[in-house]
Amino acid sequence: MLRVNEDRLLADLRELAEIGATANGGVDRQALTESDIAARDWYRRKIAEAGLGYAMDGAGNQSAILLSDPPSEKRILAGSHLDSVPNGGRYDGALGVLAAFEALRALKDAGVTPPVTLEAVNFTDEESAIMGLMGSKAVVGQLTMADFERSRVEVDELIRRFDAIGITRESMLAATRDDVLAWVELHIEQGTRLEDAGVDIGVVNAIVGIRSIHVVFRGEAAHAGTKPMALRRDALWGAATFALRARELVMRKYSPGVCNVGVIRAKPGAFNIVPAEVYCALEFRHGSEAEMDEMQADLIELLKECAAEFDLSVSHEATPPVIPATMSETVMGAIERAADELGLSRERMLSFAGHDTQNVATIAPAAMYFVPSVAGISHNPKELTSDADCINGANLMLHTLLELTKAYA
Amino acid sequence: MLRVNEDRLLADLRELAEIGATANGGVDRQALTESDIAARDWYRRKIAEAGLGYAMDGAGNQSAILLSDPPSEKRILAGSHLDSVPNGGRYDGALGVLAAFEALRALKDAGVTPPVTLEAVNFTDEESAIMGLMGSKAVVGQLTMADFERSRVEVDELIRRFDAIGITRESMLAATRDDVLAWVELHIEQGTRLEDAGVDIGVVNAIVGIRSIHVVFRGEAAHAGTKPMALRRDALWGAATFALRARELVMRKYSPGVCNVGVIRAKPGAFNIVPAEVYCALEFRHGSEAEMDEMQADLIELLKECAAEFDLSVSHEATPPVIPATMSETVMGAIERAADELGLSRERMLSFAGHDTQNVATIAPAAMYFVPSVAGISHNPKELTSDADCINGANLMLHTLLELTKAYA
Repeated sequence: MLRVNEDRLLADLRELAEIGATANGGVDRQALTESDIAARDWYRRKIAEAGLGYAMDGAGNQSAILLSDPPSEKRILAGSHLDSVPNGGRYDGALGVLAAFEALRALKDAGVTPPVTLEAVNFTDEESAIMGLMGSKAVVGQLTMADFERSRVEVDELIRRFDAIGITRESMLAATRDDVLAWVELHIEQGTRLEDAGVDIGVVNAIVGIRSIHVVFRGEAAHAGTKPMALRRDALWGAATFALRARELVMRKYSPGVCNVGVIRAKPGAFNIVPAEVYCALEFRHGSEAEMDEMQADLIELLKECAAEFDLSVSHEATPPVIPATMSETVMGAIERAADELGLSRERMLSFAGHDTQNVATIAPAAMYFVPSVAGISHNPKELTSDADCINGANLMLHTLLELTKAYA
Repeated sequence: MLRVNEDRLLADLRELAEIGATANGGVDRQALTESDIAARDWYRRKIAEAGLGYAMDGAGNQSAILLSDPPSEKRILAGSHLDSVPNGGRYDGALGVLAAFEALRALKDAGVTPPVTLEAVNFTDEESAIMGLMGSKAVVGQLTMADFERSRVEVDELIRRFDAIGITRESMLAATRDDVLAWVELHIEQGTRLEDAGVDIGVVNAIVGIRSIHVVFRGEAAHAGTKPMALRRDALWGAATFALRARELVMRKYSPGVCNVGVIRAKPGAFNIVPAEVYCALEFRHGSEAEMDEMQADLIELLKECAAEFDLSVSHEATPPVIPATMSETVMGAIERAADELGLSRERMLSFAGHDTQNVATIAPAAMYFVPSVAGISHNPKELTSDADCINGANLMLHTLLELTKAYA
């Protein structure tokens, strides 16, 4: 049975980790900064050394290409991203690109000419140094000129960074593709579900949607001495009750969906004043849009219930949501058949973090799978996936691509 | 039966309210600013016009004096303060000074020479423009040079303000008195207990102690998507549970004692990060030091219980406490006999706010009483006590002083 070259894969991972390496064992390769550009140059050289085709599109997305004969009109893509968060880890994104690259290299070494052209893609700016999921957003035609205005970097700096790799805002907007037959991404789990369950592979069946709501409970400021407790309209009582009941509700009714109150602030904010106003930042995630709707209705009902209980009012304002992305049964089936052939145990699970896959899923059948993260540590120099799991992930990529060529040839 | 001159009292209240008047019907007479000094000058002139004796001590405390014959060695004092909070109301403090002044004036008009010398006192800086309860603190010998360093105004400004009324830091420290036989203060309630109960007079049996504690719950920051809710160590869950259970505990076991969580902040503080740390400002008040000790032990036990429930740690740090002041049974008895003579209904209650009485109580038998505040509005231009209640308060002051002269002659 065909396998990737394990030593070569691990050596590549080590080599790549030296680019943008931080003192504490992590990497810092924020999109289109010097270290990210060095990693891009390294990937281009590696592709050339491997004798694979190379292309960069108008969004700066880089591909290693293994052509079919004759070259197919449409292509099967796999990959992830080489950029990192500030002070991030070695595996997030990098493993996904290198596993896809290694899969293509192993096929080429074995003399396999695939029935459909394959690409191993490095998407630009997945990690939000500029705006996040930027390269894949460009490919699927969701990027607009207005997005550049909302970028995390000033427009001068944006243009400077684009110029450094030979792209422009205009070329980004023109980078849409209509030749994608299917997409698959390998990523580290960034959680402990696989580790806890002792399972090799997490087959993602949906990437959760995210809704973020600004909530304000309003009561009445009062002297924290003279106002009897029974007469207070303390906005914190409503907010505290909500935080706890939302937790119960979501764990009981919407698991594995999640919610979080990550910000809380009381006004006017003094030891001796009963809070008149409490602001909460509420976020919740779920894999199904229909369930998200129900969850939101329940949570808003709960807000009102908690406010009424303490004679408060409550207002809420939603920010633009992230829509859940359902994964393709065909692509998941390919991953699962390949895992079974390789003897890797696997389980379906949600992805609670965002990935380029959610963008690609809007134009082509797509899915992704996870390998375990030691202790779930993520976006951290201590992030770790064992060599064995990296190799499992790459072998699974190789055989998933073979399954996909059968499905889509 | 002897009564105060109602019209004169109300006219004085109106005249005084013009000094430092704000556009919205309140007053702004922060201690030893221009408007407070104008009010002090007005009081001095009024005392002279009334033919009463006048004295100002080294702390700037002003007294109207009605001498006994021969002048007694020790004196019975009554009063309150003429300074106000920024943008405050007309009655807080002012009513107490003018009622005591009017009582002395009414006695003089009636040709009564008391068996003990009486004083109607205006204490300097009750409302914390400089440090709060400053004049009474000086009188009871609790003021130290270090207190001036902790003043809310810069030391140059402090000296300038002192100089404007002819006092110095040194004269303040020398203003201690050992001639106080008893003290009584009339104040507006700043709450709605009298109004709600339809009672004329609140006889204060203790001024509550205040303890303020900085609390920090500590859990673990986590990705608000990938970390399953059951595995989170969310510091907000502990803090929210504490806020609600502390409310229940205090209402159930320590009423009329009160508690408040007036400040709350989560760190790192983002929609998508589970709170690692939540800071809360906890304050609680009670009339009895022994109960305060028990209350604190219970609340700290509760902190630990709430932390343990969510696998958090918790730390707490107390700030300097305010000790509860128990009122004198003799002085309370005098107030109550006088109220009964006047046909005023009365009820004992705690004072949940601080007053000069708590300082005077450390050197002499002391008590205070409240008249109703409309809707409990306090430290606000809308603060209001009806003319009838102002008159009740002043008549009660007159007869309480007569009762006290009997008790202490």
